[in-house]
Amino acid sequence: MIEDKNTPRTQLSELGEFGLIEHLTQNFTISQPSTLYGIGDDAAVLDFNQKKCVLSTDLLVEGVHFDLAYVPLKHLGYKAVMVNLSDIYAMNATASQITVSIAVSNRFTLEALEELYEGIYAAAKLYNVDVIGGDTTSSTSGLIISITATGFAEEDAIVYRNGAKDGDLLVVTGDLGAAYLGLQVLEREKQVFKVNPNVQPDLDQYSYLIERQLKPEARKDMPGLLKALEVQPTSMIDISDGLSSEVIHLCTRSKVGVNLYEDKIPLDPAVISTSEEFNLNSTTVALNGGEDYELLFTIDQNDYPKIKANPNLTVIGHIVDEKSGIGLVTRANEKIELKAQGWNPIKE
Amino acid sequence: MIEDKNTPRTQLSELGEFGLIEHLTQNFTISQPSTLYGIGDDAAVLDFNQKKCVLSTDLLVEGVHFDLAYVPLKHLGYKAVMVNLSDIYAMNATASQITVSIAVSNRFTLEALEELYEGIYAAAKLYNVDVIGGDTTSSTSGLIISITATGFAEEDAIVYRNGAKDGDLLVVTGDLGAAYLGLQVLEREKQVFKVNPNVQPDLDQYSYLIERQLKPEARKDMPGLLKALEVQPTSMIDISDGLSSEVIHLCTRSKVGVNLYEDKIPLDPAVISTSEEFNLNSTTVALNGGEDYELLFTIDQNDYPKIKANPNLTVIGHIVDEKSGIGLVTRANEKIELKAQGWNPIKE
Repeated sequence: MIEDKNTPRTQLSELGEFGLIEHLTQNFTISQPSTLYGIGDDAAVLDFNQKKCVLSTDLLVEGVHFDLAYVPLKHLGYKAVMVNLSDIYAMNATASQITVSIAVSNRFTLEALEELYEGIYAAAKLYNVDVIGGDTTSSTSGLIISITATGFAEEDAIVYRNGAKDGDLLVVTGDLGAAYLGLQVLEREKQVFKVNPNVQPDLDQYSYLIERQLKPEARKDMPGLLKALEVQPTSMIDISDGLSSEVIHLCTRSKVGVNLYEDKIPLDPAVISTSEEFNLNSTTVALNGGEDYELLFTIDQNDYPKIKANPNLTVIGHIVDEKSGIGLVTRANEKIELKAQGWNPIKE
Repeated sequence: MIEDKNTPRTQLSELGEFGLIEHLTQNFTISQPSTLYGIGDDAAVLDFNQKKCVLSTDLLVEGVHFDLAYVPLKHLGYKAVMVNLSDIYAMNATASQITVSIAVSNRFTLEALEELYEGIYAAAKLYNVDVIGGDTTSSTSGLIISITATGFAEEDAIVYRNGAKDGDLLVVTGDLGAAYLGLQVLEREKQVFKVNPNVQPDLDQYSYLIERQLKPEARKDMPGLLKALEVQPTSMIDISDGLSSEVIHLCTRSKVGVNLYEDKIPLDPAVISTSEEFNLNSTTVALNGGEDYELLFTIDQNDYPKIKANPNLTVIGHIVDEKSGIGLVTRANEKIELKAQGWNPIKE
């Protein structure tokens, strides 16, 4: 947050649109066999051969989805890619390409955009996706990032939201709630910084939470793991808006109910301790926090032995019929209706 | 521009993100065989079978790409789709799907977004593309539209920018410069309106120009026509930033030069008369105006007999070797270097 006055500051207008795109994308190379042609023409050309193409898109807006006061641009670029790849993995597909469009106000320098693209580049490289196109323009205020991700899968491997059936087990990857608490910690530090910019905060104990917020990882490993375990989920969704919201989506689309067990929800010890510190209920944090980018899916009961030994997978409930409702079974063994209080980007 | 106080005004926050998406997309139906699954899951699922997938994306920002003072939202929705489809046709491909993401500030009501989506719907229907996804969020200021378009083609039908060769003919569809003049007329009327809101302008003589600006049509007909004529262009690009800029792109990517003949550039009579009225050179308008969404392509000389009778196609020059340069041959038969003065969205 401390501005280095010696940082070079190149005005975007010096390059123009085509110069800017060329400059920002010069390090991007093509490595996916399905990319026949990437950046440089009216459109990219992709070859999914016998496989089906999956496609998803997301829009991130400064002041709505991120606050540049505590999100470094490099992390933002990385996260913007993760948000999109997560949707591809949630189809049980392999992510292969992204397009990146940005609108920036003229308070951004070339060096700032280079940082953003460094993060995008790092994510694309690590997740083995090609950057195949995009658009670069100015905005009247702030930064807007629009990413479209494509991927591929065999038709019978694709998992939709609507296939859960009575008796299936509800499974979640990783642990939940950390990204939300990371945001709370960062928000608190921002307030402290406003009062006294010379305070150097000690954030060591929150490092896992902050990393989950600033540098989330999408579950690239899951489609491969599920295939290796010979488990075909009956339904799947990624957790971006909070567990509650996603459980409700899965159940509504599948026309089923669920018993979700509070005591089964996987929480990192830092989530438990920091929830206490912030006077928050850790279950509420896990249910409604969002931005975990874990996967939530259902499997047939017969597949349970295949997954039970895996430390990345936790059974948190089971599917019941639609009439039984979408319920949370509390630690006190009461069933209460699950409500979505997840984050809503459409608000005043 | 006159506000109707009786228009219903539903606040977007009343619906929330998912309610809003559902509401806005409820009329969209799937008609493309290549769309296996559209809106409603983490990602859409597409099947291009043996064909190759082409994919392009564009970002339109209020105050940069459009001014809502004179662009009706319905037209804006239509045009936003055209801008993207034009890129697909420029690959000599069939457009088949789009995703539409929007960010809106809370000064937009549900009814305003409905108008925008009416235009998108009209375009999608007329051009036979499915709306398969998108994202809806709030913005801190103004309206941002991000569209990604996909399409398909046989691999050997796809036309890139880089295939023009010495001796090829340079061909353009339709006529040029009208959209730019339409914008000049609208800008002038906006100024008049500011001074006296009661003036009802008579815009009849400018109707072609205004229509080209507000409701451009992409050249959906061209891939089919070229196939029917048995003409495979050697290079192709769409004209969004102005003829000059696109000619330079084609030549640079193909490593060739060109002789472009000023007197061959197709101009509508309204372009000639209105250029005079605005004290503009009509050649400059056609070269640098932009937003025509016509196609520019090169063909082998041997294909000339196949296209010469077509009123939609005009030969405006021929490709020369790279050393001979990218030149405009003026009416006075002088060859001058062609310069791109097209519109640049990255400026202060």
